[in-house]
Amino acid sequence: MTDIAIIVLAAGKGTRMKSALPKVLHRAAGRSLLAHVLHAARALDPRHAVVVVGPDMEAVWQEARTVIPGARLAVQSERLGTGHAVAMAREQLQDFTGTVLVLYGDVPLISTGTLRGLTGLAGHGMAVLGFEASNPHGYGRLLQDADGSVVKIREELDASPAERAIGLCNSGIIAIDAALLWSLVPQLGNANAKGEYYLTDLVDLAASCGFPCRLALCPEAEVAGVNDRLQLAGIEKTLQQSYRRRHMLNGATLVAPETVFFSADTAVGQDVVIEPNVVFGPGVLIGDGVEILAFSHVEGATIEAGARIGPYARLRPGAMIGEDAHIGNFVEVKKAVIGKGAKANHLSYIGDARVGAKTNIGAGTITCNYDGYEKHLTDIGENVFVGSNTALVAPVAVGNGASIAAGSVITRNVPADALAMTRAELDLREGWARRYREMKAARKAARKNK
Amino acid sequence: MTDIAIIVLAAGKGTRMKSALPKVLHRAAGRSLLAHVLHAARALDPRHAVVVVGPDMEAVWQEARTVIPGARLAVQSERLGTGHAVAMAREQLQDFTGTVLVLYGDVPLISTGTLRGLTGLAGHGMAVLGFEASNPHGYGRLLQDADGSVVKIREELDASPAERAIGLCNSGIIAIDAALLWSLVPQLGNANAKGEYYLTDLVDLAASCGFPCRLALCPEAEVAGVNDRLQLAGIEKTLQQSYRRRHMLNGATLVAPETVFFSADTAVGQDVVIEPNVVFGPGVLIGDGVEILAFSHVEGATIEAGARIGPYARLRPGAMIGEDAHIGNFVEVKKAVIGKGAKANHLSYIGDARVGAKTNIGAGTITCNYDGYEKHLTDIGENVFVGSNTALVAPVAVGNGASIAAGSVITRNVPADALAMTRAELDLREGWARRYREMKAARKAARKNK
Amino acid sequence: MTDIAIIVLAAGKGTRMKSALPKVLHRAAGRSLLAHVLHAARALDPRHAVVVVGPDMEAVWQEARTVIPGARLAVQSERLGTGHAVAMAREQLQDFTGTVLVLYGDVPLISTGTLRGLTGLAGHGMAVLGFEASNPHGYGRLLQDADGSVVKIREELDASPAERAIGLCNSGIIAIDAALLWSLVPQLGNANAKGEYYLTDLVDLAASCGFPCRLALCPEAEVAGVNDRLQLAGIEKTLQQSYRRRHMLNGATLVAPETVFFSADTAVGQDVVIEPNVVFGPGVLIGDGVEILAFSHVEGATIEAGARIGPYARLRPGAMIGEDAHIGNFVEVKKAVIGKGAKANHLSYIGDARVGAKTNIGAGTITCNYDGYEKHLTDIGENVFVGSNTALVAPVAVGNGASIAAGSVITRNVPADALAMTRAELDLREGWARRYREMKAARKAARKNK
Repeated sequence: MTDIAIIVLAAGKGTRMKSALPKVLHRAAGRSLLAHVLHAARALDPRHAVVVVGPDMEAVWQEARTVIPGARLAVQSERLGTGHAVAMAREQLQDFTGTVLVLYGDVPLISTGTLRGLTGLAGHGMAVLGFEASNPHGYGRLLQDADGSVVKIREELDASPAERAIGLCNSGIIAIDAALLWSLVPQLGNANAKGEYYLTDLVDLAASCGFPCRLALCPEAEVAGVNDRLQLAGIEKTLQQSYRRRHMLNGATLVAPETVFFSADTAVGQDVVIEPNVVFGPGVLIGDGVEILAFSHVEGATIEAGARIGPYARLRPGAMIGEDAHIGNFVEVKKAVIGKGAKANHLSYIGDARVGAKTNIGAGTITCNYDGYEKHLTDIGENVFVGSNTALVAPVAVGNGASIAAGSVITRNVPADALAMTRAELDLREGWARRYREMKAARKAARKNK
Repeated sequence: MTDIAIIVLAAGKGTRMKSALPKVLHRAAGRSLLAHVLHAARALDPRHAVVVVGPDMEAVWQEARTVIPGARLAVQSERLGTGHAVAMAREQLQDFTGTVLVLYGDVPLISTGTLRGLTGLAGHGMAVLGFEASNPHGYGRLLQDADGSVVKIREELDASPAERAIGLCNSGIIAIDAALLWSLVPQLGNANAKGEYYLTDLVDLAASCGFPCRLALCPEAEVAGVNDRLQLAGIEKTLQQSYRRRHMLNGATLVAPETVFFSADTAVGQDVVIEPNVVFGPGVLIGDGVEILAFSHVEGATIEAGARIGPYARLRPGAMIGEDAHIGNFVEVKKAVIGKGAKANHLSYIGDARVGAKTNIGAGTITCNYDGYEKHLTDIGENVFVGSNTALVAPVAVGNGASIAAGSVITRNVPADALAMTRAELDLREGWARRYREMKAARKAARKNK
Repeated sequence: MTDIAIIVLAAGKGTRMKSALPKVLHRAAGRSLLAHVLHAARALDPRHAVVVVGPDMEAVWQEARTVIPGARLAVQSERLGTGHAVAMAREQLQDFTGTVLVLYGDVPLISTGTLRGLTGLAGHGMAVLGFEASNPHGYGRLLQDADGSVVKIREELDASPAERAIGLCNSGIIAIDAALLWSLVPQLGNANAKGEYYLTDLVDLAASCGFPCRLALCPEAEVAGVNDRLQLAGIEKTLQQSYRRRHMLNGATLVAPETVFFSADTAVGQDVVIEPNVVFGPGVLIGDGVEILAFSHVEGATIEAGARIGPYARLRPGAMIGEDAHIGNFVEVKKAVIGKGAKANHLSYIGDARVGAKTNIGAGTITCNYDGYEKHLTDIGENVFVGSNTALVAPVAVGNGASIAAGSVITRNVPADALAMTRAELDLREGWARRYREMKAARKAARKNK
């Protein structure tokens, strides 16, 4: 197979996003637009990847390296068009022979399959990715010869009425032999209204050198771009619909699919039931038979088979929920391993902790992991009973089988099988509440009489 | 009126559900698919009900008996088609004379009205339920004679172009005189591609015996079947839309109807306002003028007139919320009677309890109902003031008009009008926090210098 | 510019709402239907506003005065039609010369721009607001002369086939010279099926006096009326879609726009990110760069730049969240100023309080602001560390730099830099939990053996 190098154009300012953040770093389904493109391309195992960014956009390159560690940076200092942007990547690819694939950081839904098809067509020439537009208005039309090769990309403004009736449009994505690319790029001109160098002009140039441009097709949805936050929301929606469909067909029940939000990497087991209104951040693995009740928020967590989560459970990164464990309402778990069959059903915060198997964490339990300066660990054994409204001041350990009485503040380790409590004597004052009530009533009356 | 017996076919494995659970036990709107069918049929007051299940599917029969206690079981050991499945029910209905109605456990939206119409047409012959399909592809077409009787059910594969143009399709649901049924069933053949006995062939057989099959019609939506979880989600959606519409027309405001999820049995009073994102499990009754704020989760609860629930309130089975009572954010109520005008507005767990009228439950109050082994009751009188962060260790009672100081752990009964508190002396260490801060800063500096 | 007076017809009972509340007081996007109409009209700076209500509907007038303080009341004791209703306002406008604009309290989506256009056309005659109906069935059709003036409003029942084909329909909203109005109103007749006086008949009367009625047009959506709660939900949906679109185009990311509910007055800064399932009540201001995570409920709150809210944060009226402050899960803030960079991340109630900059509020902290009779203030300084499960019994103050140990109940002021704690001695009983377990097991065995 031919070697592949990818160039991702990501220098656009994205003015209509009205954002301080570079456009391609905006996120959909928990992943930046750029990362979506790079994930699709990474599956082609490219030898090189170059990200072309504008000045002061090094963060874009950093993001690229989280997906493709060896990704290189090319800076386009002046915005002189897509042809000029690609030229900026030449130095990074100077010894490369093979197929160059040009992608766009703000066209995130492109699929690996489509890219594989496109690059396969390039050979020693080039191939362009087209799509049948539901409304071609505004797109460049692909003019074909009798063999189906693309001989010309006609911009809307220059198109004849017959050409405007063509629905086959240009996505801008191309694959081209590296040698051909670098021989043609210097020939691109900027004699047009905006004075920019357009990558689309390569088609003409290639054809005039005897390299007719081959055509690959993809569904219109794959080449949807992002220019404002409405379109960003549209991308998110497309992604979510596809994830929901996939998880349902794989054997998960989504009671109300349109209210469940996955990340691109959420893994969902069989016979998982997800109630309405659940949000999954990145890094979630869900085992078979897990129930996730309404209003749960889960991120960076592993949930083993048979566990029950929610409603109103928040699992944060590092939450490892064991088999058949229950995490209930208004419970937050962060960086904590919850043992098999353990339960924390109500109003608790479990952070930087281990909770042993079959341990019961009472309502209102808090692991006090932070002393204002550093984080510390709480270690709770198996079969422990933690009474309600308990504060466990870390670092602290509770042995297997121990009990902690309700309302305690535990600052020292509790041995296995022991009972620990901190509790003041009951102070009972007969009639006090009645007298207080009478006093309040008298004062109120006095105020009114003034 | 003629007696009715129902046979519900529920032996399908539902392979495309990818589930360990029999298909008809999957749920929509808080009720199994089978239960939906049985509720629709039960309103016809059938004399007998037989559920035909596959081997090892006794749970399906158990589910049937929760709706129709006298439902009988028939096991279809081999899957030899719908005609064969009906034959399995013969023994259970051997003395029955009247109309047999054949239903499908995975066709849950069928209405009582439709079934009444269909059975009314059967007489001493048979009637089939048809529908006008928006896209008839794949369905058997109903061929009629000049009188409108159905003379033939033509499968897609065998249909002529003219027959394929027919939109009138077979739902598979039939009503038939018992004697006719049992006389024809043995005549069903299996000389077809799959080698199965098809119930649809009854139409031909009946016609050839001089019993033309009458036709009842229903909307296509009523005969939607469930074969995968996408279709299950579709059924849920159809049900929810119909419940929302009904409750709105009856005088409830749903701010965002598409975000409110009812159960089939939710009862909603007049001038009830429901904010976005509310989930109702089974067994909920809501009185007039109740407000249910966003993000509430309500199941098995009765809410009396004028009460205010949420946001983020979770009412679990056995919650009885009195008139004008308030249950606020991050509050869970389970098996508890909350008196008229009582309030539990913040961060509390009230379980296995009674709370008297006008009592105020402070933030962070927890009824410690579980000792690790058994559940116990908390009884709180009227006009009680429970201070914040209080733990009430059940069994325990608090008399009318009593006060409990913040942060207390109450393990003994509190008399009426008394004040109860458990509170250690204040230990105040001047300058301690400053010294601690300085120590931490010094250590940090030392670590950096290493 | 001509003076404008508005008459809002709001006497309708709204029977199909099935409500004890007058129809125009039902709310959409946090604002009554009437208030929506009045906000649109108020921008025209009307000299007078009269609200025509039915008997016992003074609450409607009170609501009107919250938007237009000088709004006057006219009572229509008998429901004799729209013409009769307008006549009821005559006394309130007797010295007024200029243009009278007749509006409907249950047609809330009308825009200021449309009303400005309509009133501008009235001159010394009249103008009517029409719209192209997607389905004109049931509406009065506007018949025009060659100049485009409206010469007749033809009711559906009286329309010829050709007239029924007309899509241009009557909204009922008119602008008319005051003198002309009061000269024509007495000429309205009630010789029709319902025996009512119809405002629409003014068109005929005016034309016969030589005042052809001019036509203004608006989109159909603007004149959608509310007769039942389905339509109310439709109005809410239209409003929400328009708010979401506006906030996105202005530079806010809504991950799932259809799950975010704004109020009409929500102000949203740039680069604000709002996760799914967030509800905004009235009176919310959100600064630049704020993140609002899923399941948050925000009302009457100001959130300064860079703050992070949620998930599951509830901000109630009077919450002022400072720059870069964090309000986390299961935290409720009411009437409280939270300083720059302060954090209350878990399971807390902060009400009637001030929290200084950089102060850390531990999980389970509660400001006990209510003693059962009155509310009191909690004042917490800067750089304070409040340990978990702390109750601050107001009125109480905590000085800058102080620390409060976990599980404390603070009833007295804490000086700056001091440590405060209330904590009983640890009572540790070795083996107790094991013995208790054995006792419980023995009892259980004994019960079984009975």
